[in-house]
Amino acid sequence: MFNSTKQCSCKLIFQFQHKLKQASRHATRACSLKVKRAMNDPLEERKYDTDQYDETDSEITFRFKDLTTKLCDPDHLRSKPDVADLKFGHIFTDHMLKILYHKKLGGWQKPVIIPFENISLHPAAKVLHYAVELFEGMKAYRGVDGKIRIFRPDMNMIRMNGSALSSGLPTFDGMEMVKCLNRLVEVDQEWVPHSEASSLYLRPTLIGIDGTLGVQQSDSALLFAIMCPVGSYFNGNDDSISLLADPSYTRAWPGGCGDKKLGSNYGPTIRVQNKAIEKGRQQVLWLYGPDHQITEVGTMNIFVFYQNEFGDKVLVTPPLTGLILPGVTRQSILQLCEQWKEFRIEQRTVTMGEIVKLQKSDKLLEMFGSGTACIVSPISSIEYQDEIINIPTIQHPNPIFRRIREELQAIQYGHIEHPWAQPID
Amino acid sequence: MFNSTKQCSCKLIFQFQHKLKQASRHATRACSLKVKRAMNDPLEERKYDTDQYDETDSEITFRFKDLTTKLCDPDHLRSKPDVADLKFGHIFTDHMLKILYHKKLGGWQKPVIIPFENISLHPAAKVLHYAVELFEGMKAYRGVDGKIRIFRPDMNMIRMNGSALSSGLPTFDGMEMVKCLNRLVEVDQEWVPHSEASSLYLRPTLIGIDGTLGVQQSDSALLFAIMCPVGSYFNGNDDSISLLADPSYTRAWPGGCGDKKLGSNYGPTIRVQNKAIEKGRQQVLWLYGPDHQITEVGTMNIFVFYQNEFGDKVLVTPPLTGLILPGVTRQSILQLCEQWKEFRIEQRTVTMGEIVKLQKSDKLLEMFGSGTACIVSPISSIEYQDEIINIPTIQHPNPIFRRIREELQAIQYGHIEHPWAQPID
Repeated sequence: MFNSTKQCSCKLIFQFQHKLKQASRHATRACSLKVKRAMNDPLEERKYDTDQYDETDSEITFRFKDLTTKLCDPDHLRSKPDVADLKFGHIFTDHMLKILYHKKLGGWQKPVIIPFENISLHPAAKVLHYAVELFEGMKAYRGVDGKIRIFRPDMNMIRMNGSALSSGLPTFDGMEMVKCLNRLVEVDQEWVPHSEASSLYLRPTLIGIDGTLGVQQSDSALLFAIMCPVGSYFNGNDDSISLLADPSYTRAWPGGCGDKKLGSNYGPTIRVQNKAIEKGRQQVLWLYGPDHQITEVGTMNIFVFYQNEFGDKVLVTPPLTGLILPGVTRQSILQLCEQWKEFRIEQRTVTMGEIVKLQKSDKLLEMFGSGTACIVSPISSIEYQDEIINIPTIQHPNPIFRRIREELQAIQYGHIEHPWAQPID
Repeated sequence: MFNSTKQCSCKLIFQFQHKLKQASRHATRACSLKVKRAMNDPLEERKYDTDQYDETDSEITFRFKDLTTKLCDPDHLRSKPDVADLKFGHIFTDHMLKILYHKKLGGWQKPVIIPFENISLHPAAKVLHYAVELFEGMKAYRGVDGKIRIFRPDMNMIRMNGSALSSGLPTFDGMEMVKCLNRLVEVDQEWVPHSEASSLYLRPTLIGIDGTLGVQQSDSALLFAIMCPVGSYFNGNDDSISLLADPSYTRAWPGGCGDKKLGSNYGPTIRVQNKAIEKGRQQVLWLYGPDHQITEVGTMNIFVFYQNEFGDKVLVTPPLTGLILPGVTRQSILQLCEQWKEFRIEQRTVTMGEIVKLQKSDKLLEMFGSGTACIVSPISSIEYQDEIINIPTIQHPNPIFRRIREELQAIQYGHIEHPWAQPID
């Protein structure tokens, strides 16, 4: 059961393998510029001078060493659900992380972990009117050795800072945030499911809270994180999904923000998602341009595995040209498959015309989505221009989507020691 | 001073000239379908059977007759600002309107007017993560006869319902909402400035409040309205604004939601607005496509007044093709100028190439933005591809932007009796 006093007195030692490079104090202050450069490579690491923060640095970042924890009254701890009944995003843990930013008060305030509670907002808060908001999705896994690991949180923090910059919201040292998140997971560690079919989903969120109307930058912000135990995002691990590809809807466009994890990329998709469900499909395959390029699936990146005209097997995924989210799982899949050296890997534009042609000539082997929520999700069919394209993804004896998922899960659940998943303490 | 008891006992008689057409009870229940049709003409009126609502109709709409009012403690009434010092959207009135929607509780709950207060949200509320949010902007004016008028609120409510449909949020009878808003204005009537340079800005807002993660429709929602006394949106009535037109940024896209008043259309624009300010420009002129079509200015529609090759004067504004917001002020300007019959009026695509050519040949007379916040805002210059295009908008002796603004203000402040601005009681 929950042992609050013991957890609270624990000292976290942050053990990520990649080292924070030392930079001059001056360079640290110019972090925003670095982030601007890093946006060219959206998952490139940012550099902070983490050892040298002092009270005057609150405009740059908050600090893990200032974190305080107020534990929930033990009588108010919630009962944990049966992992078999878990519905994505419906049940939350006992605590949350909150960090306020007020430009007028010098910037970032001290992080606090507090009992899970409602958020009180001025009714003119910019998040409620102008979608000044962004988020991340990460997962903590209980490994076979009993240790808890978060998968590649450094990459989520880099992307989160890129989203913040594009929203006029304050940036921060992502590694300080990872340490705060690790502590939050530790406080609620009994919520990390004791099951390899489940995990604890972390949702760091940054919102603009200035209580003023007018489309302007928010000088106050709230960074918070909540967590929920989750099973499979869709129903069952190998349940393949069906898609609707309707070229009359567009998710993102050049000169927009489709490569940032902003709330504004999601709300407008709900009506199209509803249309897919009305048509008996589960997710939307977002197309772009007159040639109907495939871009993303619902909230996932997309992969196509096929045989080319020379008989070579190829794994292809759309490139990071600003139209799609630079997924952490997407990048991990590309890196894994590069190590395997068993088939060609391409990041290039794929059109629906190519998909149809490959399928008709029996060269289309698999299609699958990837993302933190689902990890890897096989695709069985696409409705496109009033026709159903059947994809034989799950009909092969050893599909690569399953092998990829198993290898990622082996890392996540600690079967394999890997730098992508370090124990939190 | 504020006379709460007297206002509270007032009975509002709703006096809009346009009549609510009677429809069958069956047709009323099918209102969502009607709204879907109305979305083709975004400001087309919707029809409700307002006389026949009963308790079982809460899935269709809330009702004004169920509205209850809880007045602010008189000791807690805020002091009203000097109208000369008004900054847009910074000071709010004493009361707000709140109407909850819970699908599981049968739909719309009873409207309440309560003292202005913070909104308490579940930290997973969909509005905070996926921008499930939309709003409207309207104004109440204190007329020369002492009566208070709201300008064309019926049109805002039609657009608001269109935005709700596109967000998977519940629709409602706009005229019931107008009656509730009228009552809110009446309760806070002393906040309507006694000045023809000022007005009371109304901000109805609809947000998805389901406390669950996952990009899905929100089955709970909060419709609320707050109000703030406002002066001129920009500084001074005739202060013309300078624009940055940078084709590397795009506000909206075909197949997107650029013609809906969703929060998601605004957050991603802040970074570009900041860029304009860094360059010494006040607003962004949003371009679209390889031919650099002009679409909107910041949060305004745009008009161009010029002389064509035959010497005819023409007022042109971009068409409602889904890329721009169907502005109430935009439509009102078109209707006014059609009545004048003094120059040609066109709704068609205008490119930056045409603007440059017109300006170089001295045929470009005026450019101005239009919107509820600014009414009409003259444009003095555009920075485009490293050149400054000067627009002689305010250099004419009798510019049409000023005449349009004066005529709109004459209606708004009751100098002219007009169906667009009816007294609220």
